[in-house]
Amino acid sequence: MSKTANEIRVSQVEIRDGFWSEIQDRIIDVVIPFQEKVLNDEVEGVPKSHAIENFRIAAGLSEGEFYGMVFQDSDVAKWLEGVAYSLAVKPDPELEARADGIIDIIEKAQQPDGYLDTYFIIKEPEHRWQNLQECHELYCAGHMMEAAVAYYETTGKDKLLGVVQRMADHIISRFGEGKERGIPGHQEVEIGLMKLYRVTGRTEYKEMARFFLEERGKNPDYFYEEKKKRGWQHWGQYTLDPLDTAYAQVHAPVYEQKKAVGHAVRAVYMYTAMADLAGEDGDKRLYDACLTLWDNIVNQRMYITGGIGSTVEGEAFSTDYDLPNDMAYAETCASIAMVFFARRMLEAEPDGRFADIMERELYNSTISGIQLNGKQYFYVNPLEVNPGISGKIFGYRHDLPERPGWYECACCPTNLVRMVTALGSYAWSENDTAVYSHLFMGQKADLKKAEIIVKTDYPWEGRVSYEVFPKTEMPFTLAVHIPSYVQIQDECTVITVNGGPVSIEKQMKKGYLYINRTWQAGDRVEICFDMKVRKVFANGKVRDDAGCVALMRGPFVYCFEGVDNGEDIQTLRIPREWKAEICRCEDGVLKGNVLLKIPGYRMCTGDELYSEERPRKEEAVLTAVPYYAWANRGENQMRVWMLEEN
Amino acid sequence: MSKTANEIRVSQVEIRDGFWSEIQDRIIDVVIPFQEKVLNDEVEGVPKSHAIENFRIAAGLSEGEFYGMVFQDSDVAKWLEGVAYSLAVKPDPELEARADGIIDIIEKAQQPDGYLDTYFIIKEPEHRWQNLQECHELYCAGHMMEAAVAYYETTGKDKLLGVVQRMADHIISRFGEGKERGIPGHQEVEIGLMKLYRVTGRTEYKEMARFFLEERGKNPDYFYEEKKKRGWQHWGQYTLDPLDTAYAQVHAPVYEQKKAVGHAVRAVYMYTAMADLAGEDGDKRLYDACLTLWDNIVNQRMYITGGIGSTVEGEAFSTDYDLPNDMAYAETCASIAMVFFARRMLEAEPDGRFADIMERELYNSTISGIQLNGKQYFYVNPLEVNPGISGKIFGYRHDLPERPGWYECACCPTNLVRMVTALGSYAWSENDTAVYSHLFMGQKADLKKAEIIVKTDYPWEGRVSYEVFPKTEMPFTLAVHIPSYVQIQDECTVITVNGGPVSIEKQMKKGYLYINRTWQAGDRVEICFDMKVRKVFANGKVRDDAGCVALMRGPFVYCFEGVDNGEDIQTLRIPREWKAEICRCEDGVLKGNVLLKIPGYRMCTGDELYSEERPRKEEAVLTAVPYYAWANRGENQMRVWMLEEN
Repeated sequence: MSKTANEIRVSQVEIRDGFWSEIQDRIIDVVIPFQEKVLNDEVEGVPKSHAIENFRIAAGLSEGEFYGMVFQDSDVAKWLEGVAYSLAVKPDPELEARADGIIDIIEKAQQPDGYLDTYFIIKEPEHRWQNLQECHELYCAGHMMEAAVAYYETTGKDKLLGVVQRMADHIISRFGEGKERGIPGHQEVEIGLMKLYRVTGRTEYKEMARFFLEERGKNPDYFYEEKKKRGWQHWGQYTLDPLDTAYAQVHAPVYEQKKAVGHAVRAVYMYTAMADLAGEDGDKRLYDACLTLWDNIVNQRMYITGGIGSTVEGEAFSTDYDLPNDMAYAETCASIAMVFFARRMLEAEPDGRFADIMERELYNSTISGIQLNGKQYFYVNPLEVNPGISGKIFGYRHDLPERPGWYECACCPTNLVRMVTALGSYAWSENDTAVYSHLFMGQKADLKKAEIIVKTDYPWEGRVSYEVFPKTEMPFTLAVHIPSYVQIQDECTVITVNGGPVSIEKQMKKGYLYINRTWQAGDRVEICFDMKVRKVFANGKVRDDAGCVALMRGPFVYCFEGVDNGEDIQTLRIPREWKAEICRCEDGVLKGNVLLKIPGYRMCTGDELYSEERPRKEEAVLTAVPYYAWANRGENQMRVWMLEEN
Repeated sequence: MSKTANEIRVSQVEIRDGFWSEIQDRIIDVVIPFQEKVLNDEVEGVPKSHAIENFRIAAGLSEGEFYGMVFQDSDVAKWLEGVAYSLAVKPDPELEARADGIIDIIEKAQQPDGYLDTYFIIKEPEHRWQNLQECHELYCAGHMMEAAVAYYETTGKDKLLGVVQRMADHIISRFGEGKERGIPGHQEVEIGLMKLYRVTGRTEYKEMARFFLEERGKNPDYFYEEKKKRGWQHWGQYTLDPLDTAYAQVHAPVYEQKKAVGHAVRAVYMYTAMADLAGEDGDKRLYDACLTLWDNIVNQRMYITGGIGSTVEGEAFSTDYDLPNDMAYAETCASIAMVFFARRMLEAEPDGRFADIMERELYNSTISGIQLNGKQYFYVNPLEVNPGISGKIFGYRHDLPERPGWYECACCPTNLVRMVTALGSYAWSENDTAVYSHLFMGQKADLKKAEIIVKTDYPWEGRVSYEVFPKTEMPFTLAVHIPSYVQIQDECTVITVNGGPVSIEKQMKKGYLYINRTWQAGDRVEICFDMKVRKVFANGKVRDDAGCVALMRGPFVYCFEGVDNGEDIQTLRIPREWKAEICRCEDGVLKGNVLLKIPGYRMCTGDELYSEERPRKEEAVLTAVPYYAWANRGENQMRVWMLEEN
């Protein structure tokens, strides 16, 4: 096995998409500036951040005490990473100047030996590196590496890159084979090190990532021994149990991990780095380990929306097929992590199953995390809410029926910012012989072998055109991912090159259509397919979806809200023989979205709690909206899975 | 309104019933002796009780420290109450002598002023009566009153009665109008005081009960103020929040409480005392308050099994129609409390709706709390369990798939003991003109107006005969509750007196058949009805039962277990057009139970987690067992509510 395709940079793609451009604009115009103010403690009525002030104090530019979480630094890092991508999407010299100023402070905060973590610099210098399990120094370092690489790639400025290289060198001097055999409590540094390796070409960063990954689980008692040795705890009564090895993914060496377990974000960050390293090194054994974990997530542990980590306890994976809709955790960040994982798997092997999941995540349980106005956020993405119960009663308390202001949860908003601003880089990968289009998305992509302009009404309609302007006279392959729901044998599915038909079945391999030719400027590949509404059934082992169907159209999962469907939507039924009318929403907050109208039924009962009388069936027209857009019209009931008529 | 009927004593009824006699025997032969050993710390491998030793220490008969919960005394009281009833059912001079010995110790432990609570006598005498919210002195007193009354009624011995009267007098000297306006944190003393009033005829006990009931909620801040005043807490970090007034049923005066809220056992103990007092005093206003709360429970907040208090948090009532099956709490004790409440409502007004619920509780979610072998117990009675999830994963951790040993939970076993041994007294009430039969149950009842012998195959078959041996030559009424599920217009429903037909519709009133006549010795009332299997539907507002049916036969709710039905019972479907075959179980642990065999379907899916392929329908024969008998054949899946074919 050798690396199949390389990542592309954010700056290579300009999104010009009916769906995504608006979301990117909102992130760049609303979220990034607001977040900057919060990090600078300039917003009233929001919990104090102090994150930039911590760096100032550590830099000796200000007096005071550290304030915030032990991983407060990562808020600044994630914001900087988002800013970096946003500068590629939409240059903003003033924003860039302010970011430069913050980077100056960060540089000054760095210690002579390269160490950089304001909590320990200011508050407990004697405790540096003693509590990897709880104190997230490596996690913060990883995020700062990602920020530095992004900032370098989009602005060309390398000051922060120098900072994180010195930090990485400090880490390498301390940890590794023949040194301290440490591993991070919250995986992330592995991702940062891989990016740092790619931008600097220094293999020691990649080898450091490999050490952190391969060391993990060799000694399942590592965190237990660390705790005994240091004799202090950071979180008091909330301290992690170092014996819960699965929570921390240290229960077995990564090659022997067969199930996705523990804290979902930590797990998938780790898998992302594993996939990245597997692709980079052509490491088949590591790739196979990734594939086992991927398959377990996708085939046993994922909501139809792409949500993962179904239990609130530990924000963690539960057991196979345990996917309760009304108790779901399905953290926004975990779905974002799946986008990262899918991207790295696609670079290792362009297989449509990875792109399908990337698409599922992007259009559903990632962006369900953000209000359409860009100002409120969900951490948790349930598939059913019931006002009066959700957010209030034990078991459902984490499942809120409306998005709170972003300041309530710092990690998901910043993660959404960096995902949405970097979106273009997920759309493609490239190698010497081919360019791979993973997502249907309107854009201008500036690849090594060609400039490609994609025009589309996707995700609302099944029409996509790729206009190719080659930079080489040599033939190369354009490989286009065709989502698995597209029925390639359907007569409505037509793919043409310059108007001439393509033999779809012959040219399809693992979900990609391979078109190899010597391209002429303006060559056009067109893809048309019928975007019908699909009824989807869950595996019988998923108890919570028994007897139910979910509706999908294109990449969207649909849901039913009380505001459209009245009270007690659990009494509504979708007929077995059914049809759905497509309506483009013309006004209001959902303007532009395709809604579904389904003639169905409402089952009516009397006042008794239990009765031998069969519920009466009344005709009712059901309305469904894309799941990502739920909870934008006030608090109301919502369900994804609906019972079929019986 | 005046009192309609009086309670009868346990000693007036000898149960001779195919179903209940065996359960009574098991309680008396297995549970009571085992529990005695535990209370005396004579069982290895069981958490130390120390309950009798606490009394010895308080009595100066032993040296040592108090050990156990602050309400440890109540374990002794509840055991003594069960012993008292058991002596009526099955005399045992040795057991009685040992109980007398314990009562001697209790008497010696009582303080000169009548105070009796070993925790405060031994450990914190300076803190007596300062923490009514948390420390349950009144709760323990109430249980000791119930024990004393029971012991007096079945043995004629009044030593313990003297003890509790002195305790009650002490309470009266301290609390009430013009004195301290205290109320109990855990209701129970009100029940004890009412019983003490009836056996002694002293109205001050009844008035003390009235004070505790009517004072409650007048000042919703009572517990908050108490906490501020005393400046100490008993439970440390687990202390109750005195501002959660609904939890403690102090949010409003009892007359203004419209919803059943808070800790379910405390609530229903309170309603029981309210109903008792309402009946006793002919207090229409109080009766109406009870009726409002009764209706809220029965029409909005009760599982089909009779389980109440659906949320584990606070062992409490949730909101209307929030009845999750797999997260149910439905404490055994709460269902037992509903039996008590129903009994008192029946004495206030013989209305079949109370008897229906009493029956539902007795045959379902009370005795589901005890293993058929008598040795293991459920606190919590879910309507769905899934091994690997139930008892293990957040949200479901309290729902165990198998009954633990009884020592794990002290309250439900002791409550089951006193309910089952006192069963005869729930079967009847009596007034000057009528005797009321509330339950079909084989027995010899020695009432004031007649000895009545009931013979029946109930609950397995619909045949009951009442043979009357009058003690008076005056006419009187035998009023027999006909369960509401019996279709009185069905041609199979036949009621005769000495073989002659009775005009059922004319003589039925509120669920009771009234037969007034001058009875001759050996007069026989016979009731026959078709005991068909019923499909029951839940109100559409119960989200968790949407699309489902439950099966009932006679008083039993049925459930489906994995041991009979294979894996993934959520994939099984009951046809809309259906039939059920009745099978008497001939061997094994369920011997004697009627099982149901239903030709139905299993919905089969492929390996994919989500698919557009409709599940295949395969024929399957489903087997259902009475709910009370579930989890007697090893850990396995269980469901009450099953989807109908669609």
